[in-house]
Amino acid sequence: MLVRKPINVGLIGFGTVGSGVHHLIARNGAVLGQRTDLDIRIKTVCDLDTARVKERAPGVDPVRDWKRVVADPEIDTVVELIGGMDPAESIIVESLSAGKNVVTANKKLLAEKGERIFALANGGSASLGFEAAVGGGIPCIAALKSGLVGNRIRSVMGILNGTTNYILSRMQEESLSFEDALADAQAKGFAEADPTFDIEGYDAGHKIAILSMIAFNKRIDYSSISIEGITKIGAFDIEYAREMGYRIKLLGIGKRDGERVDIRVHPTMLPLRHPLASVENEFNAVMITGDMTGPVTLTGKGAGSHPTASAVVSDIVRIALRPASPEGAIRFDGDASYIRPGERVSRYYMRVHTEDSPGILANIAGVLADHRISIASVIQKESELPHVPLVIMTHEAHEEGLFAAVERINAFDFVEGDATVLRVEDYQSDGADDE
Amino acid sequence: MLVRKPINVGLIGFGTVGSGVHHLIARNGAVLGQRTDLDIRIKTVCDLDTARVKERAPGVDPVRDWKRVVADPEIDTVVELIGGMDPAESIIVESLSAGKNVVTANKKLLAEKGERIFALANGGSASLGFEAAVGGGIPCIAALKSGLVGNRIRSVMGILNGTTNYILSRMQEESLSFEDALADAQAKGFAEADPTFDIEGYDAGHKIAILSMIAFNKRIDYSSISIEGITKIGAFDIEYAREMGYRIKLLGIGKRDGERVDIRVHPTMLPLRHPLASVENEFNAVMITGDMTGPVTLTGKGAGSHPTASAVVSDIVRIALRPASPEGAIRFDGDASYIRPGERVSRYYMRVHTEDSPGILANIAGVLADHRISIASVIQKESELPHVPLVIMTHEAHEEGLFAAVERINAFDFVEGDATVLRVEDYQSDGADDE
Repeated sequence: MLVRKPINVGLIGFGTVGSGVHHLIARNGAVLGQRTDLDIRIKTVCDLDTARVKERAPGVDPVRDWKRVVADPEIDTVVELIGGMDPAESIIVESLSAGKNVVTANKKLLAEKGERIFALANGGSASLGFEAAVGGGIPCIAALKSGLVGNRIRSVMGILNGTTNYILSRMQEESLSFEDALADAQAKGFAEADPTFDIEGYDAGHKIAILSMIAFNKRIDYSSISIEGITKIGAFDIEYAREMGYRIKLLGIGKRDGERVDIRVHPTMLPLRHPLASVENEFNAVMITGDMTGPVTLTGKGAGSHPTASAVVSDIVRIALRPASPEGAIRFDGDASYIRPGERVSRYYMRVHTEDSPGILANIAGVLADHRISIASVIQKESELPHVPLVIMTHEAHEEGLFAAVERINAFDFVEGDATVLRVEDYQSDGADDE
Repeated sequence: MLVRKPINVGLIGFGTVGSGVHHLIARNGAVLGQRTDLDIRIKTVCDLDTARVKERAPGVDPVRDWKRVVADPEIDTVVELIGGMDPAESIIVESLSAGKNVVTANKKLLAEKGERIFALANGGSASLGFEAAVGGGIPCIAALKSGLVGNRIRSVMGILNGTTNYILSRMQEESLSFEDALADAQAKGFAEADPTFDIEGYDAGHKIAILSMIAFNKRIDYSSISIEGITKIGAFDIEYAREMGYRIKLLGIGKRDGERVDIRVHPTMLPLRHPLASVENEFNAVMITGDMTGPVTLTGKGAGSHPTASAVVSDIVRIALRPASPEGAIRFDGDASYIRPGERVSRYYMRVHTEDSPGILANIAGVLADHRISIASVIQKESELPHVPLVIMTHEAHEEGLFAAVERINAFDFVEGDATVLRVEDYQSDGADDE
């Protein structure tokens, strides 16, 4: 009988994902062994809450001190699933330094402070896997890093946060307000009690930072990323978008523009034919546009115990199958240079609430014309309200001019509050967008 | 300065894909080197048409005899792009036997006669890569084989042939007949002068055979796959599908049903919310449903010089980065057992042309009732024609009963010609379809 090669895993963190990894290996270990000749064993589980380990994984004897995992000479691969900055960083650094492979789902650490970790993984005798950090069960890191390795990447963008996509889907499908959709997401377990990190776009920011580092091979300063969340999106905007044939999605976007990059997170108007427009509910999706492939889109569940465990296990296996060839992490060719936000060009959706009196449209159109922004379409409906919504879609314009115009429009006496502005992301199926 | 590791490639076949590989390496060699520390060099190009090699790749000195490539001790990786059975099989077998890595796009050979090749690749010191055999620039083989390695795969299905998808998209969008859409595809270079291989579904059959072998780890007998092409789809069907909220797509489908599998190619009715319903024109897509991930869908260009070259180069790189750990091909756990086609269960679309006289619907409905098939909806419109189309959507039923009923319906005097029957493929976004 064939003897399978044992791979001893030390699992640090036994929450949703950690217990999913344990369950996956218990359930699918035989098929994994058949496919890979590996016998993957969770040798040690480390968690401060030893009771939940004993409950969910009977027979596993948990430890509370992660240093015992890193110091164990029998452990081949350390899986870090506690998240956050510390002690996650120490766990990863000490494990890699000790020659142990590391698999992590820690997007925040890699996005904000990954450089030292990537350098250790590139230079040493151990591998770093982080498929689970972006897109849950979607193998998007491997697609970008390996599948499209022969491409210069023009752009990578995606629906990278399931909470916000679920909220926008509910607003779209059931005409809910943002607040009601958020409450629904919380009730269904798709949003945390404190949803700030998701709804303000920070989680998507971490993920687009990681994807952009791989795509462009440049060090990205996380604080340089412009991040807008979805809290200003109203039922009005969802409804107007639908009328005009668009969907509103929170996108993380990384684009190459010559030698510079443009990285941002914001709610975006997508025409219905855009591959990301039809990705609904808790699903995530990543669209990578390579100069050779054109657009390649991957869609699947972006979070959850089992999908994320699938990504963790794919890293454990891939690394174990090339023991003599540690897999480098992200290779950097210097620091990224960024385009100024004002240089960005797109079409825009603008919603502004105004008094219902003559000459207002002329005033607003005049301001846009002053900034050389031409109007593609206008929707203004009869209304009983004292302030009526006016929606304008522009042709392509620089952000600089658009925001200068919006500042002047917001200052008009007849305008109530501030205009809501959304960028439109158009889709070229040939992917030949910049050369 | 860092010395990059040279990888010498022997390229056999310099048609569309071969010249694309040459162009990709010439154009993106620097970024490849930066990402991988490999210096990929095309050392030799082998093609019977040496003139086209000299024209498209000035400076490359072509050879006409593939044995010179396989015998060259300096060549690390042989790229087989001539297609067909012979001498492609000899090239691959002799290369692997000589310890050379092989990268191929040859779906026909792998699907119909791959066993010897897979066994050689599993046992030896060389690797076999065949990402380019399915889905062009979409890294779907890697996603299935590595990204979802921890999953028991419930099903893999996809739009695997760009020619037929282009034709169906033209019929859909421009209400063209099959013949006119085919002529348009030929004019645009999306269909061959002799389109049989594509439109009869054989190409999709090869691809679903390969995907199913990986998904289920079973040897698949290509001749056991039921294959139907798109030649019987009429403008009528496209129009009725649209009215009812469906798209018609040619799908390759591989499903696991307990210990048995069900593998087939046929035109399929997809509800609009199905991830494959919105994949248009020359795009391909693969949806893999894992027990851990749920549905994961990959979409992109399924053919063409540059997308396919991207897949070839990803294989060259991945194999070169693990020199001491040859990558096994597909691991088999025995021969597949197949479900009998009659055991399949789905909903069905049926179009039948009948005389316009009383009692006909009652007769047809009676036959369906005899076979315990219940009707979900009926469309019959007023018409000037002597034979009017009657369209029936059924609830779920076994194929056995459905086809027995259709045989009786076709035999009615008042029925003109044979009924057109299409299977409906429903979509469960939770992927929890069989356990």
